[in-house]
Amino acid sequence: CPCPLPHGDCALSRLLRRLLAARRSLEICLFAFSSPQLGRAVRLLHGRGVRVRVVTDAQYMGLRGSQIGLLRQAGIQVRHDQEGGYMHHKFAVVDGRVLITGSLNWTTQAIQNNRENVLVVEDAEYVKPFLDEFERIWEEYNPANYRFFP
Amino acid sequence: CPCPLPHGDCALSRLLRRLLAARRSLEICLFAFSSPQLGRAVRLLHGRGVRVRVVTDAQYMGLRGSQIGLLRQAGIQVRHDQEGGYMHHKFAVVDGRVLITGSLNWTTQAIQNNRENVLVVEDAEYVKPFLDEFERIWEEYNPANYRFFP
Repeated sequence: CPCPLPHGDCALSRLLRRLLAARRSLEICLFAFSSPQLGRAVRLLHGRGVRVRVVTDAQYMGLRGSQIGLLRQAGIQVRHDQEGGYMHHKFAVVDGRVLITGSLNWTTQAIQNNRENVLVVEDAEYVKPFLDEFERIWEEYNPANYRFFP
Repeated sequence: CPCPLPHGDCALSRLLRRLLAARRSLEICLFAFSSPQLGRAVRLLHGRGVRVRVVTDAQYMGLRGSQIGLLRQAGIQVRHDQEGGYMHHKFAVVDGRVLITGSLNWTTQAIQNNRENVLVVEDAEYVKPFLDEFERIWEEYNPANYRFFP
């Protein structure tokens, strides 16, 4: 990237720009979400009337710095896995059309210090399987299905 | 996937099939690599004369169960980051043409128990930036550049 920002800030600003373009819907499916800037952007979209849904990992959502509590406080729907392995996806879909996926968790550590990739894809051929997976997970993690005595 | 295998075994077998199709080259860029089956496949390709290069994360390569030592023992070139953040990529490129990327680290835990995605892409538009990133990292992590007293 030829821009004059430090690499991490440039990556963050490009990601923010993609997210803030949302007009109707935003699906987020993230193992770890602790970046304050990205948390703010998601709350802003919710405030603008964009339909935001978040799926995350139960073991990571409660860690210090997690944005998940703030999202819920703002009235955003969040669902999480209940047991077993990690919910390890790291993707988002903007307006049912733009897939943002890769190795990047939305954490300041990852954005600033790690070697990561983020792929932005608009071909329906790639976007659809991720949207389908989101809807599958969304139903599977419906709190109505929680088992308290596994 | 409509196949009768359990989901993890099916995902593993599809990944193995893609890798074992390599005829000339295989670039692997992985945060964590501990799956014995995938390790075996990579050594097999190396034995067949495929040019295999591996980039991995220094903090994870020494963990119990890591395949990295076995790959090196087999004569495969491995390079790793030296400090700072994680080398968090999870991608491979087969014959300079097929990109395999996503959230999946090549570990049995991830394949069998996690919720993960793997994208297989052949469009040069997507493959090239990953190949470029691999070559950049490969040079950056050249042991000739290691600093022992940072």
